[in-house]
Amino acid sequence: MAKAPQTAITPTRAEDYPEWYQQVVRAADLAELSSVRGCMVIKPWGYALWENIQRALDQMFKDTGHVNAYFPLFIPLSYLEKEAAHVDGFAKECAVVTHHRLEAGPDGRLVPTGKLEEPLVVRPTSETIIGATYAKWVKSYRDLPILINQWANVVRWELRTRMFLRTTEFLWQEGHTAHATSDEAVEETKKMLGVYATFAQDYMAMPVIRGEKTAGERFPGAVNTYSIEAMMQDRKALQAGTSHFLGQNFSKAQEIKYLSAEGREEFAWTTSWGVSTRLIGALIMTHSDDDGLVLPPRLAPQHVVILPIHRNDEEAGPVLEYCHKLRAELSAQRYDDAPVRALVDTRDIPRADKKWQQIKRGVPIVIEVGPRDIAGDTLMPKRRDDKSGEKKAAISRGQLVSTIGAELAAMQRGLFERAAAERQANTRTITNLADFESYFTPANAERPEVHGGFAICHFVETPETAAILAKHKVTIRCIPLADEPGFEEQVSGKCVFTGQETKQRGVFAKAY
Amino acid sequence: MAKAPQTAITPTRAEDYPEWYQQVVRAADLAELSSVRGCMVIKPWGYALWENIQRALDQMFKDTGHVNAYFPLFIPLSYLEKEAAHVDGFAKECAVVTHHRLEAGPDGRLVPTGKLEEPLVVRPTSETIIGATYAKWVKSYRDLPILINQWANVVRWELRTRMFLRTTEFLWQEGHTAHATSDEAVEETKKMLGVYATFAQDYMAMPVIRGEKTAGERFPGAVNTYSIEAMMQDRKALQAGTSHFLGQNFSKAQEIKYLSAEGREEFAWTTSWGVSTRLIGALIMTHSDDDGLVLPPRLAPQHVVILPIHRNDEEAGPVLEYCHKLRAELSAQRYDDAPVRALVDTRDIPRADKKWQQIKRGVPIVIEVGPRDIAGDTLMPKRRDDKSGEKKAAISRGQLVSTIGAELAAMQRGLFERAAAERQANTRTITNLADFESYFTPANAERPEVHGGFAICHFVETPETAAILAKHKVTIRCIPLADEPGFEEQVSGKCVFTGQETKQRGVFAKAY
Repeated sequence: MAKAPQTAITPTRAEDYPEWYQQVVRAADLAELSSVRGCMVIKPWGYALWENIQRALDQMFKDTGHVNAYFPLFIPLSYLEKEAAHVDGFAKECAVVTHHRLEAGPDGRLVPTGKLEEPLVVRPTSETIIGATYAKWVKSYRDLPILINQWANVVRWELRTRMFLRTTEFLWQEGHTAHATSDEAVEETKKMLGVYATFAQDYMAMPVIRGEKTAGERFPGAVNTYSIEAMMQDRKALQAGTSHFLGQNFSKAQEIKYLSAEGREEFAWTTSWGVSTRLIGALIMTHSDDDGLVLPPRLAPQHVVILPIHRNDEEAGPVLEYCHKLRAELSAQRYDDAPVRALVDTRDIPRADKKWQQIKRGVPIVIEVGPRDIAGDTLMPKRRDDKSGEKKAAISRGQLVSTIGAELAAMQRGLFERAAAERQANTRTITNLADFESYFTPANAERPEVHGGFAICHFVETPETAAILAKHKVTIRCIPLADEPGFEEQVSGKCVFTGQETKQRGVFAKAY
Repeated sequence: MAKAPQTAITPTRAEDYPEWYQQVVRAADLAELSSVRGCMVIKPWGYALWENIQRALDQMFKDTGHVNAYFPLFIPLSYLEKEAAHVDGFAKECAVVTHHRLEAGPDGRLVPTGKLEEPLVVRPTSETIIGATYAKWVKSYRDLPILINQWANVVRWELRTRMFLRTTEFLWQEGHTAHATSDEAVEETKKMLGVYATFAQDYMAMPVIRGEKTAGERFPGAVNTYSIEAMMQDRKALQAGTSHFLGQNFSKAQEIKYLSAEGREEFAWTTSWGVSTRLIGALIMTHSDDDGLVLPPRLAPQHVVILPIHRNDEEAGPVLEYCHKLRAELSAQRYDDAPVRALVDTRDIPRADKKWQQIKRGVPIVIEVGPRDIAGDTLMPKRRDDKSGEKKAAISRGQLVSTIGAELAAMQRGLFERAAAERQANTRTITNLADFESYFTPANAERPEVHGGFAICHFVETPETAAILAKHKVTIRCIPLADEPGFEEQVSGKCVFTGQETKQRGVFAKAY
């Protein structure tokens, strides 16, 4: 019997996908649960990844005319009450501040005192507090548009949490814009959806479908919600970013009014859009393997890690010298309009541990350097996404250095192509209910993740449709935009669930 | 009678300094109070300034070996209770989360429900929650040092708030490090104080004194607290950054233990250090004038703003074309290792308003461009710190472009020199109590800010000393470090308050 190949992560994806995910987060040193319920500690390697995500997105926001600002963490209860649908969606599970002081009680333990007249909610999202501010800023059509983004922490009291995917506190950005016309606000909503799609594909190497949410999946208070949807390796969908056209719902609730050029008093049209540390969860589940994290080079905190190998102090001198020289040469190369990020890992821990740690952390290229490599001035770089298992021929140091940028670019491209092929292989157009039901029924009850994947179906939203979807725990992820590849042509067909003729097609999947 | 010159800010610094400050914050569009008690909205111009401060500091932290991470917003009450001195200092005025749900009450209004078993405190600072995490991370001496920084929001329930200087919620960074030895931790504490001093002087153009705090002014739970102290234009001191050597106080409370190379179990030695959005308050009060904000070029969101002047559409075309070309030429120049940040302000608002707005916002260089300037291809840049009131000769466009970097550098230097001269003019060595008391007694009761400034005195901390200081509302700002210019030589003298002979000298001032 062939021995199963050893993997760094236990269990493997095939054995237990959800647990594999938690183990990758841990093994890659990305984050850990804190002792505060549902809150995580984002560790340096995970935070460096978030910093790279932030930097790229922030530049894209600025390039599309947005500026950053900062609004209060706390929202007065009365603000939340102003927009009825919004209350229903968000007021339920919030952290509520009721006191502003702690004093020693009779037993010496601290007790909350100084009760607030009006409780404050820790922001679950900031439409209401930002809207109230815009109402003060906007007087004339000349004050519009307002194009502001905020990087912030938000809190939603979640019952079941999973690191990066769903935590009580998380980090995100929330764009909030106000416009003079509905058309302009809709255009902004779609533009930012496009920014998210570009970021997901170009930086995260993660293919996404841009689409509109159905009524039942809209952001509480929105007129339309758009999202980007990605397929994870367990074939489930993950909503990776949302952009909302809020119409005049919030501007009416918050009284964001302006005097038009014609002298009429009008309500502004607003949008909001956001992505969060959830993107890191998406990144992990798109590319990682049974040896741990795999990072797309454009977002990797380090591109290359050099591991010096020496058995004694005598060897250490020349090896370290060579490694530092190599690092300097690599850092002088450019990738993605910036110097290559290279590091020599000189930590005093066992060689194998060190190597596996860098693999589990997803470093794109790892190079071991020992006396024999130095003697030949040739090296054997190991690319993290190379799953061939074949031993590659050594290449000269000069060649390694001069091709490093191209190698990173090839890996970035390769990751995207692999994910796109994977998605394509697990996406099917389905035209009848029997196929739909069997597509979403796992063949093996112990491995519920092994099902079809994405289904493209004509559909009409009816109670019948909803019942069938609920039965299979499948959701309508989105109605793809008309310029989404494969959906450019409007074709008519029969609703898989009701048999009604319709032009509406949706992407159906189990989802996070 | 000569007419008083008109100023953009009312009142002027001489008329009402505290109110002048508020008006500068408002006129420069930096921030405004929100409807949430004590919390401010940081507006785009103010936030862009904070982003520049962050970027520069973050690089300095990374250059000194630190990495960023993120820890939970909430601290369980029991954590705060672990370090006795820390509780006394911080547990008093905090935002306390007691419930995690909102439900409609009998009158339809939302009420907090879902009472937490243990209340959570919104972090006023993170020593306890980070310490608890480090206790899990540290096992062996090989795990040390831990050199981590966090960019975050914190909340301290302040009774009297002033924008940027003291607000309920504020943004800051907090460094938290753990070391194997006391010496290493002390070195870290002083190194980061040095980083803050370098940043204040080189970026903010704000001279500071590095020193140690006396026992009464220490951070709750610290063994030693160091600070940088700056003089504002009202001669009061502002503590602009602090660095704390925490000894083993927190590591004992949180059980941060490690096995030494010799196999002994030891407690780690920890430090913490922070600066906040208060720096923006310091910046305003160091450089601004009666026309509003004055920004040091290294931190200014825009270096140059170009104002097109045209009376009609016919003039507009060539003027805008010239302005955009000028902007492109300026942006191709470099200052401070990056492209010059230049902008054409094309907003449709009256010309005078636009110009004054840019002046009030502290833009280093403003250039008006009209048809006559274009005809001669000469321009009259106005440097924000030029208070001569003289009309300067126009310079050719080519010269303006080629010297822009030098001009910005000259302004940066000029601001520092002016502030340093101002501080020197208002600092005095005082050797007897009568001089001390008259130095800190305002000549005019209506203008309490007009007093001596900084006093350098020999002193011994006694109840007598404290009583005299309290009477005059003067505090010991710090005991300057031995390598602080002017303090290198240890000279003995008589304590101004008690007459005792001592080598200890302090900086005394009224303070923010």
